[in-house]
Amino acid sequence: MTAGILCIGTEITRGEIVNTNATWLADRVTQAGLEVTEIACVDDDRARIVDMLRRMASEHEVIVSTGGLGPTSDDLTSACAAMAAGLPLVRDVASVEAIRDRFRVMRFTMAPSNVKQADMPSGAVVMPNAVGTAPGFWMRMGRAKVFFFPGVPREMHYLWETHAEPVVRSMAREPAVQLRLNTFGEGESAVAERLSDIEARYPGITVGYRATFPAIEVKLLAKGRGARELVEAAAVDVRTRLGKLVYAEGQRTFVSVVADAVRARGYRLALAESCTGGLVAQMLTSESASDYLVAGMVTYANEAKTKLLGVPEAMLEEHGAVSEPVARAMAEGAARAMGVELGLGITGVAGPTGGSPDKPVGLVHYAVAYPGGVEVRHRVFPGERARVQRFAAFAALQLLRTCLA
Amino acid sequence: MTAGILCIGTEITRGEIVNTNATWLADRVTQAGLEVTEIACVDDDRARIVDMLRRMASEHEVIVSTGGLGPTSDDLTSACAAMAAGLPLVRDVASVEAIRDRFRVMRFTMAPSNVKQADMPSGAVVMPNAVGTAPGFWMRMGRAKVFFFPGVPREMHYLWETHAEPVVRSMAREPAVQLRLNTFGEGESAVAERLSDIEARYPGITVGYRATFPAIEVKLLAKGRGARELVEAAAVDVRTRLGKLVYAEGQRTFVSVVADAVRARGYRLALAESCTGGLVAQMLTSESASDYLVAGMVTYANEAKTKLLGVPEAMLEEHGAVSEPVARAMAEGAARAMGVELGLGITGVAGPTGGSPDKPVGLVHYAVAYPGGVEVRHRVFPGERARVQRFAAFAALQLLRTCLA
Repeated sequence: MTAGILCIGTEITRGEIVNTNATWLADRVTQAGLEVTEIACVDDDRARIVDMLRRMASEHEVIVSTGGLGPTSDDLTSACAAMAAGLPLVRDVASVEAIRDRFRVMRFTMAPSNVKQADMPSGAVVMPNAVGTAPGFWMRMGRAKVFFFPGVPREMHYLWETHAEPVVRSMAREPAVQLRLNTFGEGESAVAERLSDIEARYPGITVGYRATFPAIEVKLLAKGRGARELVEAAAVDVRTRLGKLVYAEGQRTFVSVVADAVRARGYRLALAESCTGGLVAQMLTSESASDYLVAGMVTYANEAKTKLLGVPEAMLEEHGAVSEPVARAMAEGAARAMGVELGLGITGVAGPTGGSPDKPVGLVHYAVAYPGGVEVRHRVFPGERARVQRFAAFAALQLLRTCLA
Repeated sequence: MTAGILCIGTEITRGEIVNTNATWLADRVTQAGLEVTEIACVDDDRARIVDMLRRMASEHEVIVSTGGLGPTSDDLTSACAAMAAGLPLVRDVASVEAIRDRFRVMRFTMAPSNVKQADMPSGAVVMPNAVGTAPGFWMRMGRAKVFFFPGVPREMHYLWETHAEPVVRSMAREPAVQLRLNTFGEGESAVAERLSDIEARYPGITVGYRATFPAIEVKLLAKGRGARELVEAAAVDVRTRLGKLVYAEGQRTFVSVVADAVRARGYRLALAESCTGGLVAQMLTSESASDYLVAGMVTYANEAKTKLLGVPEAMLEEHGAVSEPVARAMAEGAARAMGVELGLGITGVAGPTGGSPDKPVGLVHYAVAYPGGVEVRHRVFPGERARVQRFAAFAALQLLRTCLA
């Protein structure tokens, strides 16, 4: 039992909008227990929409379509659905009244073109739209049930949740079970290498990977009877193999894991960033941070390191700004300047210029000052500026987490 | 001459990631002068990938495919491309060496599975990848030229621009001319309203919009003979209507426009951010900034505003941290603390909590201290935390730009 998503609109095929509707629908249909094997997007062309509907109806049991139900001349979906199914297009009287009522309530005058939104293939099941003018509808086409929604996200969400989701869920034969393990510290291929025989050892388990650089999410999926037990058995094995790489399960973010480690100790934190340019501060404050983050200092110039953090000028001259002593002095200086328990310091060469044989692009020193002392590390991170910055920010926060463990 | 985009990966069909690759490629292929009539996404299933490639190759002259070139067992694209074309899969020796070299440079050990990334259909043209391990390739399949890229956006961008774009552009019968105007200050529908009759006034011009929040890119596209003159005539009209909203043309970033305005005066800048949490620092340092950015201070707690910026405690008590006087004192304090000409201060309620009837979520005060005085503004930005932060960062940098004009 497979499902396909169909998005209709030239604004999508020309790359003018990011197709978040497809992502939303694919997620919901997957959650309802069907396997979405295809997302198709087609431009506002009558013949191509009809061809696409016919082909998809011959390949899937469920199709969810969005877009092209508006009042303008390039909204062709209803007419194409009728044509693809070999049915006449009829005007649904109840829908005409509903559209008229909606305009009355909103005190707008109904344009003549809006009546067109009540046209649908003969025999289609209307999905009344309480949050917009275009009703949705669903119908049989070959062996498939095809659901048609308007492309306005809010209206699509309403129609899916109110009318379509119960029907689709009742069709799913095998509810799926999925577990997510979030890892940081190794690349996708190294993580995959560690898990190369999991699918063979646990028949029925599918292992998936998603890289949201530099973190790697490992997904274990199973379907049907015993799926939960199977996923849990495989997860025990996977956790053992990945060890410390796993920082969280499910939807938890890396930032929330680090923040909770700081909160658990009742500490407060000050940041001193050079090459990451405020990225660590920005990451931490992407979630609520006011209870533990006191300040972040982006000490880009040497004089800022001296003025704000008290890094000695002589140290900067002797070792250079990108050095272990300076990373240590930045972490200590941040904590001291703000009078808090935790200081984090990062200094490096993010590139693309500024590298030397001694201190290549990608070299980053990072340090954590905490009540137990100071920990300093360095690494050469590969890749371009934004990657070096992001990698360094994660590595420094990981070090902070380790110091608090 | 039509083109199709094919995105391969179960993470897409399950709705786990928003498919920005499809949008990016559709935009670029459209710009190269081809008509993209279809975007297809398929899960990591051998039979379905092969079927999809065969069908698309029979319907389009150009197919651009992304994803599934990684080292893991669910990366099937090369094998499926070979199968769809009825060709053997061969290992490209030069690519093996390139992958090995890349690992050597990065001082990583190459996993055995990475060798698989050098496998491609016999006779395919290799597109060497200077920014990642997976090479791309292109080949003929039926009447179509099919391009295969890895799904990592950075690598896909590189391979498209370096290897594929010139080939695709040469195939377009009617080379397209496109002009981009980057705007900030109004939403997409307000910008579109200003330009509603442009397509009618300049027949042959297509107006497109792309929102990279909070900036809106306006694209003017024409094809065939006289395209350049037509685009230029329309652009004069569009520039007049949009006025100050336009901050740059072409591929220039907002950050580079602001940075160049600071550089042109020979000034140096210090930042004091509260609710944006380092986002402004991070935006500025995403490009080279060491010649003008001295320091950024993320003064999240009130004591940080006092210690680092000298904001008087009495002022914080009387007016609250989110207030015009505090924004002003932060901007002045940042410039004074670092001894530089320019200070930027931002304080607000990013949400989701912390709002009050007087100071609702989204309220942001921002100020620029410069040799001509201090400018302070406030606005209530709509939306969730990340949007408020991003909007506020843009607005503050826009104010800085205005002060330097």
